[in-house]
Formats: sequence, structure tokens, C-alpha cells
Amino acid sequence: MLTRPIDPPHRLLMGPGPINADPRVLRAMSAQLVGQYDPVMTAYMNETMALYREVFRTGNEATLVIDGTSRAGIEAALISLIEPGDRVLVPVFGRFGHLLREIAERCQAEVVLREVEWGAVFTSEAIERAIVETRPKVLALVQGDTSTTMCQPLDEIGEICRRHDVLFYTDVTASLGGNAFEMDAWGVDAATAGLQKCLAGPAGSSPISLSPRAVERIRSRASVEAGLRGEGEAAGCARRIRSNYFDLAMILDYWSEKRLNHHTEATTMLYGARECARLLVEEGIQSAIERHRLHGSAMLAGVIGLGLEVFGDVEHKMNNVVGVYIPDGVDGEALRGALLSDYAIEIGTSFGPLHGRIWRIGTMGYNARKDTVLTTLAALEQVLRQAGVPVTGGGGVGAAQEIYQQERNG
Amino acid sequence: MLTRPIDPPHRLLMGPGPINADPRVLRAMSAQLVGQYDPVMTAYMNETMALYREVFRTGNEATLVIDGTSRAGIEAALISLIEPGDRVLVPVFGRFGHLLREIAERCQAEVVLREVEWGAVFTSEAIERAIVETRPKVLALVQGDTSTTMCQPLDEIGEICRRHDVLFYTDVTASLGGNAFEMDAWGVDAATAGLQKCLAGPAGSSPISLSPRAVERIRSRASVEAGLRGEGEAAGCARRIRSNYFDLAMILDYWSEKRLNHHTEATTMLYGARECARLLVEEGIQSAIERHRLHGSAMLAGVIGLGLEVFGDVEHKMNNVVGVYIPDGVDGEALRGALLSDYAIEIGTSFGPLHGRIWRIGTMGYNARKDTVLTTLAALEQVLRQAGVPVTGGGGVGAAQEIYQQERNG
Repeated sequence: MLTRPIDPPHRLLMGPGPINADPRVLRAMSAQLVGQYDPVMTAYMNETMALYREVFRTGNEATLVIDGTSRAGIEAALISLIEPGDRVLVPVFGRFGHLLREIAERCQAEVVLREVEWGAVFTSEAIERAIVETRPKVLALVQGDTSTTMCQPLDEIGEICRRHDVLFYTDVTASLGGNAFEMDAWGVDAATAGLQKCLAGPAGSSPISLSPRAVERIRSRASVEAGLRGEGEAAGCARRIRSNYFDLAMILDYWSEKRLNHHTEATTMLYGARECARLLVEEGIQSAIERHRLHGSAMLAGVIGLGLEVFGDVEHKMNNVVGVYIPDGVDGEALRGALLSDYAIEIGTSFGPLHGRIWRIGTMGYNARKDTVLTTLAALEQVLRQAGVPVTGGGGVGAAQEIYQQERNG
Repeated sequence: MLTRPIDPPHRLLMGPGPINADPRVLRAMSAQLVGQYDPVMTAYMNETMALYREVFRTGNEATLVIDGTSRAGIEAALISLIEPGDRVLVPVFGRFGHLLREIAERCQAEVVLREVEWGAVFTSEAIERAIVETRPKVLALVQGDTSTTMCQPLDEIGEICRRHDVLFYTDVTASLGGNAFEMDAWGVDAATAGLQKCLAGPAGSSPISLSPRAVERIRSRASVEAGLRGEGEAAGCARRIRSNYFDLAMILDYWSEKRLNHHTEATTMLYGARECARLLVEEGIQSAIERHRLHGSAMLAGVIGLGLEVFGDVEHKMNNVVGVYIPDGVDGEALRGALLSDYAIEIGTSFGPLHGRIWRIGTMGYNARKDTVLTTLAALEQVLRQAGVPVTGGGGVGAAQEIYQQERNG
């Protein structure tokens, strides 16, 4: 079989992620490898830890990357924190809440759910009530769920969890870097992310940060691998973590100065993860969030200006993605296909109850820019018109321009 | 914190892997992303499957890559194949046998071990005897264990497993592409690999292939993720796979024409994995193995020519790595440090019982070349001399050159 080298066509990825990687991230990833324990490599690992502390806004020593996609980070956190039989509370407001539930179930947790309608979030009071009712060991809560575009407020949850002695885990894959997140100030015990959203990299590496009390829980379940153990050293404890690849106690030892061998670090993904964080820190986390807020607002105004109806509770929308109802009588997939084939622009479809009902349009990471917002709105106007939807010429771009104009004047 | 972009110094990585990536692989990995369900992306996924079928020498439809390092592939195979309580036979001849044992234990298998001394392999008779004695459901056996440099003969094992109705899993991370491997002809049911050895890529993606009977076992444990399920669709079975990320039933659905959403494919790693296989197929698998044999023989002759003693059963050595005893009175780590700092060449240390006793020198993937072999031997001569070891000037390079000369004349 003869195949040609990788040579993808140009795409402007304006869906809910993955989005185009920042070219600087791809350049970092094209660098040649060094050895796994080369001082250059271990320095890169240490720098990556320090950079992600800034991104997560934390002093947590235990801040590193898991070699796998975002759900690898989720599974590493949950399987290392949850012991079989532990009660875990999962408030679900979209698809990724169901994912946390599903992974917690496989960790043999006793999972209790609370659900709100897709398009809404939980109040802090509702979460505290659920904690009081169910007395969980762990609260597992998504911050930004791209399936609904919602951003769950987390700023009061950590304090509630501490009062009730609950470990607080959150997945910030879709939100980190584009929406406020304060690991320490909000009292979060464990957080996991991915590169393919506001961090402007490819999927395949999952940044994670763990509070000292999360680390303590994990360390109490530590075991040393056979074949690395010294003579007479203990094999481990009965509460042993049920995965080797996701055993955070071992992974912490690998990332510590002990450098106890675990997996072979995915060097190229590490280069990418480091560069994603470096670019955010260079820009300033607050500036990056502000940039996402600006371009997200412009896109929101733009789709409204095109006459589209926005999905869900806009007050709690993530900065980096908006859901819009597919107009009556329009074949949503045909229109997405036209955008892709005629303009090389990708917007997103939806899952579950929203399947076939809404499109999701992202403005994140490298693609949170004025030119991408205006280009997408201009193309969307054309394909909507072609599909027979009545649109005001320039209505989308004009509304977005107004937001940019206000910003300049404000 | 201000940090600079990734800019690693030049290194010639002649250890047991990771080794330098082929520059063509890094170029493939610097390509911009496309969407997860873009027809270009799904075509790349299908091509990757087809290419790895050639690399594994199999017709298995279920041939794909796991997003994680080699041990992610191992864990995906074992956790999907093994049900709690299943008996698993693990013949151990080095560190990675212990890893299989350790992962199988965490899958709650009843693990039975057989061990040979590090530096030896098992006879087929010994493995059949162990199967008869222990009646396992699964045999988990490493092909090439870099910790000892040994290559376990597998050509008769599949037939034995079929006769005794045992599923045959093997990890070929260290050996694939540089040593003969015949998935179908040898009756292997599941095999996993990595990119960072003879495949000339970075760690972070794990090629895997599954026979129809392995797929049947896995499919019988399938479940559909909550949040993706239709109304009334079953949640799954009691024998549910205990990991979401490594649930091969789900991963197979994602890689099938159903494209049922699981993780977000690690696009850049996929580009790399595809290019690694493409280069091997372009060269020809047999030619690649022959290249590894040639340069491995030259390195072996070279270290003997330098007066070093070779570790283990040389008849069963992998083509791509050789272990040599650290000469008496030499500080192994200091010498490795001198090689790295003065010549930018990395050779490997060892684990467990061999720690401090042997160095491991690799000739694999992009670094299975004449110039790398001769350069390494020339530098090794100098640092050995500097460490006070009596060496014949040119003894290493001369012996290697003789192998290349024989090859030209033969």
C-alpha cells in the first residue's frame, strides 16, 4: 500500500474544539527529542509544572501533564481519588457530566446524580443541598460543558466542600484559559484539562493539578511496581489504585526529583503542552480570558445579528463557545457541509438531546481573533441565505463590528 | 515566570529508546490540525489502520492506535481482555514481564508467573508446560524486553495457545519493526507497540492489533456511554470493562465507520503514528528488519572489539539493543555522563538486578545507521580510555567496519 505524507488542507476550525493549533505550538512540537532522563528533558518537565501552576492559578506542587487526551486526565484523577464503594456526587448539566458519572461508575463508586436541563447550570445552594442529602466523599463537577456551552460557577463550591469534608474535583478542559479559573482561591482539590480548546494545542496531553489533601489521599494508596522494587520492599496496599497507567501516586514519583520510572514521557506532546502554557503565561492569563470574552461577545452579537436564536442561559455561557438553534426547515448537516467545502470553515454539531437542533460555534485559543469571527459570520450569512433563510445582509458582521467598536471606545 | 521556547540541544540517542525521531515524522507532526470528523481526518485514521496492518503483518480489521504511551496500549489490551478473576499466565524474563504482571493484577486477574533468569528466554516447551499446569484464560508475554535485550521466540506460541484455548497477548513495543513479527502467521490474538523504538517516532501513541477472537471477547463486554445512549438503550453488561479510556469496545466503535464519539483523537500523535508506519512500509518491513540486523551486528562486534563483555544469551538478543557489562572499577554513570557532555551521545543505564552492572546500547529506528554506530563506538573508545580501561585503539570501529565489509562482499 502506498500512501502520501500528511498534508492536510487548510481548515478554519470554529467548532467547540479541537481548534487550529497555534503555529508556535506546532513548531515546538517539531523539535528533536532528547533522552527521558536528560537534564534538558527533566528541566522541561519542571518548567511545564511551573507554567501550569500559573495557568491553573495554584501553588500546588502536584501539577503536571498526563500522557493522553482530556479524558485520560479525568480518569487518572477519578481512579486515583475514588476507592471502590466511595460515594461520588455528580451534578450533570450536559454530556461531560455524564462522562464523569460513567468514569466514576467504572471506578466502582456509588454514584449519585443531580441533573438540570441542558442549557442551565446549578446554583451553589443546589449543590450544597445535594451534598447534605447524599454525603459524598467526592464531588465531580464539570466547569465548562461544551455540549451545552454552559459554564458552571465554581467560586463558592470549594468552601462548601471543605465545610462538608468532600473532595472537590472539576474538569476544566473546555474552559481553562478562556474563562476565569482560580484553583487555590476557589478551593479546588483536583482539576484536569486538555490542550485542544483555549490552550491552542492538539489533543493528547492532559494538564492536571492536585491540592495537598488530594495528594495525601492518593499517596495513602501508593504501591511500587514489581521489577522496580528493592528486595523486601512492600508491593502495596489493599486500597491499591486499579490502574497502572493512571496511578497518580506513581506518576507523581516520576515527575518528582525521585524520577522513579513509570511510562516513557511523550516528549513531543510535552513540548506542545509546555508551549501552550508558555504562550498563555506570556500573554497573561487575565489578558487571555479577556480576549476570549471579547471575541466570544462579538460572535454572540454576530449570530444574533444574523437572526439566529441562541441556546441556553446566556448569562452562564462560556466565553469560548455559543450554541445557536438550527433555523426551521434547514438541514443542519448540509449547511455545515457547505461551510466546510466552500469556505473551509468548520462549526460544530451537537450530542444527545441537542443533536440536530443546535450548532455550536467556538472562538477559542488561536482562533479567538477578530478575523476569524468576522470571516465565520460572513460565510455563515452566505450559506444561510443559500439555504433559504432570510438574513439581513451584513447583520452578523455589523453586530460583531459594533462590539469591537465599543471595546475601542470603552 | 518567563521561559524560553523549546530549543533542545543536539543529542544522538543510542540507548534502549526513546531514540531520535526520524525528521520526516517530526515534519508530519508539525502539520496543522483538521476537525475530528473531517473526512480528511477519518481518511488519515483509516490509512493509519491499513498501514499498521502491514507493520503487524496482519489482516485484522481491528488495528488502530491508542492515545497514550506504550503502557497505555498494554493496559487497554489487558483491561479489555481480562475479566476480574480470570487466570493470566505471565512468563517473566525481564522488567516488562513484571509490568504485564502488575497491570494484569490491577485488572484483578489471578496472575500466575513463570520466571527465567534475566538474560535468558523461555522455550516453547516451557510455556506449553506452564499452560498445561495453570490453565490460564490469557497468556501475556513480552516479545522484546529492553531491560535484558532479549527477544522471546513467539513463532510456536500461538499454535500452542489455540490448542489449549488460551488468548495470546504480546507486547512488541521494543521489537516491532526491527525484529521479525508475524501477527497472523504466529497466531497472536492481541499485540501492542509504541513509536519510540524501531518505529522512529516519539512516545505517546500505541499501535494495537486484535484478532477476531480477541474482538469477540471484547465486544461481549461492550457498553454505550451515558449521554450518547438513545432513550431506552441498555447501559451495558455486568462484565463491563473497568476503564472508559481503555475500553477497546468503545474505541473500536470510534475507529469504525460508526465513528461513535469517544476521546478526541490526538491528531498530532496520529499524524506521527501514521508517518512512522508509512516510512516502514515504504522501506519494506523485511528491509527494515534487515537494516536493524546489520547495524545491531555491527554494534555487537564493535563492543566486543572494544574488549567489553556482552550480557545475556546473544543468540536471543534483539537486533536493536545490546547490553554490555560495565568494566570493573568504572563508574558507569560517570562514563555515561562524559559521553553525553562531551559527545552528546546517550547510552542507557539498567533497571532492577542489572542496575549499575550493565549499559544498554541501542541501534534502532532512525538511529540504525552506519554513521551512528561508528560514531558511538569511536566516542565510547575515548571515554573508556579516559576512565582508565585498557582499550585497543580502533578495536571497536574496526570490528564494526568488518561487519559492514562482509555485508558488501556477501
